[in-house]
Formats: sequence, structure tokens, C-alpha cells
Amino acid sequence: MNIGISRLSNGLTIVTDPMPQLESAALGVWVNCGARNESRPLMGVSHMLEHMAFKGTERRSARGIAEEIETVGGFLNAYTGREQTAFHAQVLKADVPLALDILADILTHPTFDQTELERERQVVLQEIGQARDTPDDVIFDHLQATIYPHQPMGWPILGEDDTVAGFSRGDLQSYMAGNYRAGSMVVVASGAVDHEMVVRLCEEKFSSLPPGTTPTPATAQWIGGESRVADDLEQAHMTFAFPGLCHTDPDIYALQVYTMALGGGMSSRLFQEVREKRGLCYTISAMAQSATDGGVVAIYTGTGEQEAREIAPVVAGEMAALASQPGEAEITRARAQLKSALLMGLERPANRAEQLASQLLTHGRIVDVGEQIAKLGEVDAAAIRRVGERLMATERPAMASLGPVGKLESFGTFAARFGGTVAMRAAE
Amino acid sequence: MNIGISRLSNGLTIVTDPMPQLESAALGVWVNCGARNESRPLMGVSHMLEHMAFKGTERRSARGIAEEIETVGGFLNAYTGREQTAFHAQVLKADVPLALDILADILTHPTFDQTELERERQVVLQEIGQARDTPDDVIFDHLQATIYPHQPMGWPILGEDDTVAGFSRGDLQSYMAGNYRAGSMVVVASGAVDHEMVVRLCEEKFSSLPPGTTPTPATAQWIGGESRVADDLEQAHMTFAFPGLCHTDPDIYALQVYTMALGGGMSSRLFQEVREKRGLCYTISAMAQSATDGGVVAIYTGTGEQEAREIAPVVAGEMAALASQPGEAEITRARAQLKSALLMGLERPANRAEQLASQLLTHGRIVDVGEQIAKLGEVDAAAIRRVGERLMATERPAMASLGPVGKLESFGTFAARFGGTVAMRAAE
Repeated sequence: MNIGISRLSNGLTIVTDPMPQLESAALGVWVNCGARNESRPLMGVSHMLEHMAFKGTERRSARGIAEEIETVGGFLNAYTGREQTAFHAQVLKADVPLALDILADILTHPTFDQTELERERQVVLQEIGQARDTPDDVIFDHLQATIYPHQPMGWPILGEDDTVAGFSRGDLQSYMAGNYRAGSMVVVASGAVDHEMVVRLCEEKFSSLPPGTTPTPATAQWIGGESRVADDLEQAHMTFAFPGLCHTDPDIYALQVYTMALGGGMSSRLFQEVREKRGLCYTISAMAQSATDGGVVAIYTGTGEQEAREIAPVVAGEMAALASQPGEAEITRARAQLKSALLMGLERPANRAEQLASQLLTHGRIVDVGEQIAKLGEVDAAAIRRVGERLMATERPAMASLGPVGKLESFGTFAARFGGTVAMRAAE
Repeated sequence: MNIGISRLSNGLTIVTDPMPQLESAALGVWVNCGARNESRPLMGVSHMLEHMAFKGTERRSARGIAEEIETVGGFLNAYTGREQTAFHAQVLKADVPLALDILADILTHPTFDQTELERERQVVLQEIGQARDTPDDVIFDHLQATIYPHQPMGWPILGEDDTVAGFSRGDLQSYMAGNYRAGSMVVVASGAVDHEMVVRLCEEKFSSLPPGTTPTPATAQWIGGESRVADDLEQAHMTFAFPGLCHTDPDIYALQVYTMALGGGMSSRLFQEVREKRGLCYTISAMAQSATDGGVVAIYTGTGEQEAREIAPVVAGEMAALASQPGEAEITRARAQLKSALLMGLERPANRAEQLASQLLTHGRIVDVGEQIAKLGEVDAAAIRRVGERLMATERPAMASLGPVGKLESFGTFAARFGGTVAMRAAE
């Protein structure tokens, strides 16, 4: 990798990551602002802003934006997270200047037209309806709300019907003015790109972004507990969650290895025990998500009404077993899986751009691939026991379930499987 | 591209597609056999076989297969379609021989162990449950059954609860013996691969595959009609379908351009009219699927109960407008989108391997990228009118809906918007 970094006088960081063999480029603007930066009445405004950016600028209509990028066969898209919002494009080599021009235009001169806003509200309400119809999507909103109740970190990214109905044009404008600050934004371009050209174009087009940084949101407080929604679905959809680690925690690599060994692939403990040995589910997976001030380790599965009874004790049992007696083979395997996912990810420009942006916004620097691989290589059984013990020590986990979930054990029974040390529990 | 093709004496085709700049490879075995090759009592057996191939061989246990590939950080997966089944892997360069060895082993010496089969039945029943809980997944099964009722082409790929409960070990063995014939199978490896090495390994490992070809399934008959399932969902999920074109139809490129212009991106007619102008939905898209003996052009969207009333006339109206007066700009744009999707797809080995396999199984040859781009470039307004007229002439379209769909217009009303020629309708 031959990464170039420049900074404009307003604080905007520009990163280029040339892949000379490619004919296309992936580029985008990442903003260090997302749903957790919202106040209660503005729940969902980050996501609405993301939608409205595409709805016209001083120079371009909404239809014009769509037509212009697609006329050159480009793709333009965006997403909103809890801590970041991204606007990104994928284009052929010759169209990098056009993509940068459109991205800059929608972020520096959006009009947030009132008629477009009224229409887009309806679109977002349909998006919320679609999410509600997808159990393995909506259950993660329930889980997040259970972990962080009455806090921005626990709110649904899309907002709720009443807040989406209430946003005004002024709300969008002042939210953008307050949060979309050049010092908290990065432009990243991977693939068929040239550093000098990208920097020159960014100087021309992004210099009007206001300086300064996005205000830091309040620290999230893990509360935990249960959400259980009985519903007429085929499967009992279940998630279980435990406090994870923030981006910069030194044990973050160990937690990745633990989570991979627990439920990251076909050979993982949960896949082998729940699907392969017991035949209880089609999907089971564990994931570790990190934020600035904490993180979440979550497990998702879906099973039948009767089978739901078996799941929670098995999840707790495998977590405890991995925390107390991690095997050398499973650690080696999980490290290899993470390493090859990292290397294969380097072959895709969109993936590289996203990784680079995330590193800059969360670590303030590019984390070299060699460094990542070395850190993964250092994860040993002691580190796995350390992060595993920490998860097992959770006094108050979180649990969200949806569907025919009457047979799932009570939250109290589940929570009692955690807390204290593994040694204490073994001695009981 | 520097593609190598060899053929073993049993008829197995081996294709390599080296991408010298890569450190990883995507490789797999594609079989010209899928759900439409099944008899009624064996509905779902192709998919069950795909699952059971991973459940142990004479040399490897199910767990051994998972552990062996993941120990080198590789990914192993499979999927079943209506005409094809694929078993594929992604590994780092050095592990190509291991991946080929595992793929060959599971396809030449699977044991289909009885205990594993009983357990895997439960896993597949859970997979069916999960699909039923996902409206924008299950609705396509309803649509397919409506288009091709009482025919293998219309059956759900996963099978149904009663057929999945009934498969015996012998069923799997005889289905495999009859259909997994070397002359109807291709091995494709893209990325960090070497032709001579891949061919040598395939000779060693795949020579025991039986010669011959998969029996050709019965021709599918488009019947069409309606499936309407009232259900307590947030959105009215709707699909509309029309007879498309088979893989080898000379108008296949024109149909791709038509479908892209109709509902392929943000600038497409349906996206602009239904989402951007009317704010009725979050998702609307049109897709063209091809098979050996026909195809399906389908449109999917989800909207609210009241809004469902508006959808069908708008879909029919945009289809007619595009068929009668296609704009030069929208044709140019759709061609550019298809061309750049094709070029960007070439940058990913998994995508290349899949494309090459599909071309060999459906055309019997590699279709050069230059040829594809030239054919796309030839699509003009006359070709769009021709394929559009053909869709509009549909005497009996198909419609599947799910959710609060009481306001969706009747099938009779919708079908009456089609049939005859555009000129006839204009004269009415």
C-alpha cells in the first residue's frame, strides 16, 4: 500500500490509496457523526440528512444527481451508523473528478428543499416499515434499546414515526452546520486514483466546509436487561449481548479472536454445537462491535418454538468453556480466519476505503496492515481467557427476542449464568 | 484476461483465469443441475444434497471439513439454484491445492451419513422457517409458484416441510449418481492460480466423477396468475412478473438494458416515479432472470396498505411508456451502468469465477468481455421497443403479494393492462 495523506486548511483529511492495476475507484466522504449525536426530538435526523443530501443542491436537482452519476455507469450511495455517516461512490477511473464533484456538492450546497423533504419523510417511513418486517433486522434495534435505554446510543438509526414526521428544514440545516465540520471528516479514495489530482480537486470543492470538529456525544451507559416480543413468526429470533471493548482497547484483537472462535465461522463453537451437533438453527453467529467509549459482543440465532428452550444455556456454556479453556487449535484457526479476511479485503477498493476512513476517524491514524497482522499473531490463550473472563463477569447482559419466544428462559435465569469470575462459579 | 480451458477424459471442464496481482483465489465446482431437475417427492433434494456434501466424506468428518478450510483462513460455501448448484471456496494463494482437494472430496466421496442426515433435516427446516419470516424472500417463492404452478421450475428451492422430512440416504445417492455427471460440471479458478497446477490437481482428484451429462429437465410452461396472501405485516410486499428471455436469446442484451432503465438504479423510471416523485416506497427494483428455456422479468416493491392501490397502474404505465417511447438518454445511461458493472465485476475473483462458470454451463463457451460490451453498445431504441412490446404483449402476467394487500388492484384489472400491442392499446 502506498497511502497518501493531506490536510486542507479547514482540517479536512484527504487519503488516497492507489491500486494501479485497477480500472475503477471507490471514494467517499466519512463524517464522524451519526445517530448518537442526536437529541431526542431529532432521533433519526442523521439518517434523514443522509437521504436529503441526495435531494438537490444549488446546482443540481435530485433527479440530476442520479442521472449524472449513472450516465457514467457510476454508483452513488450512503449509510448512517451510530457514530459515522458515509457518502460514497464507485466509478471508472476517468470519472473520479465527477464523483468528487457530486460528493462535494451534496455536502456543501444541499438545498433541503421543503417539497423534497415532505416526500422523503414518506420514503423513510416506508424504510422503517420494511425494517419492522425483517425480524433479523429489527431485533438488533430492540437489543440496542435494551442495552442503552433512553440514550442516543440506544435509539433506532432510522428514528421513529413521530420524530421522522417532525423534522423541519431548519433542523437539518442546523444539525449539519453543527456537526458536519471539516476536522471530523475524511475523504478517502482507493483504486485508480492519483493523490495530487484528488487533493487538488478537494481543495477546490471542499474548502468551503466549516472548520472545527463534531461535538463529542455523551458517554453511553450500558444498562442491559430484556426485550421479549411475542409475535406470530415461524422462528424464535434471539439475541444475547455483553459489554465489549472500545476501538482503542489493547485487547481489541483478542476480543476479535474470541468472537471468531465463539461464533464466527463453520468451525466455531456455537456453529458446531447449536447447528451441527443439535440441528437447532440455520443461522447462528457472534459479532463484536466497537465504538469510541465501549462496545457490544452479540450473538444472534433463530430457531423453532420448542427448540428456543435449549439456546440460552448452550450460549452461556460455550462462552464459559471458551473463556476457561481455549484450545490452541481454535485460537490458531480464528487468527488465520481474521488474517485472511483482512488480506482478501485489501483486494477490494470499496472495502479498503471504508477501512481507512474508519481507522482515521477512530484512531486518528492509518493502522498498517502489518501492524494488524502482528497484533493478531500475538493473541494467545492468556489473552482469550482475559477477554472471555471479562465477558463472563457481566453483571447484567442484554437479551432481545422476537417471535414464539415463550420457551426461552427468563432473563433472571440467563443473567445468573454470568457475573463473578469463572473460578467462583466453578467453586459453587 | 488470460483464460485457460482444459477437459478431462470424463468430460469435466477446467477453467483458470489468472489475476497475477492477487494473493487470493476464488474457485469452485458448478453443476448443471438444480431444483428444476427434481421430481415432486424429491422437491428440495438438490439443496439437501448441497448441505449434505459438507457433512463428511470417507476421509473427513463434517467438523474436519470446517476446521481444515478455516485453519488456513479459507471460506467454503455453496448455493443451490433452479438450474445450477455451486460449491466454492476462497483461499490465499498457497491453499489452492487444499481447497481443490476438499471440493473434490465432498463431490466424489461424500458419505451422506444417516445421523448427519437426520440432523441436517432439522437445519433445513429451520432455514425454511427463516425464509418464511423474511417477506422479501418468501414472496419470490410465491411468485415462482404462480408463474410455473405444479412444475419443478415453480417449486421452492429449499423444498417443503414434508419433502424435506422424507429424503433418504438412498435418495441423495441416486440423485447424485444420476445428475452429478462430469460432462455437466465445470471447475473454475480465478485469482492467484496457475493453469497447469490446477489441471494436474483436477486430473488427480476429479477423474473418478462419472462421465455423461445431467438429463435435461422438462421445458417450463409459463402459466401466470395471482398469489395474494393477506398477512399482518407493516408493508404490502408486491411482485409483478412477465415472461423474459432465455440465456441465448439474441435480444438478451436489449432486455438487460430495458430492465435497467425500468428499475435498475436511482435514475430508473420506477425509482423516479414511485419513490422520488410519489414517495411510496423505500425499495423498488426490476430484475431480468434467464434460464435455458425462458426467463422472468420481475418487479418488487413494498409500500403501505393505502399506498398499495397506486403501485400496479404506475408499474404498467412506466413499462408501456418505456416500450413505446424509450429516451436516448435513458438507453445510454442503462448501457453505461451495465458496462461499468461488468468492468467492476472483473476486479473480484469470486465474481469472475461465477460468471465464467455460468457462461460455460449456459452457452457452452466463454463469452468474451469485449463481445459483451459490443453487444450492449448495439442496443438501440428499436431493440428496447422490441423487447418492451414483447413484455407488454403478455397475455397472462403473474403477481404475488403479501401483507396488507387488500387495496392492490385485482389480477384481472392488472392483466388487462397488458396483452395485444402498444399500438392497439393506444388506439382504444
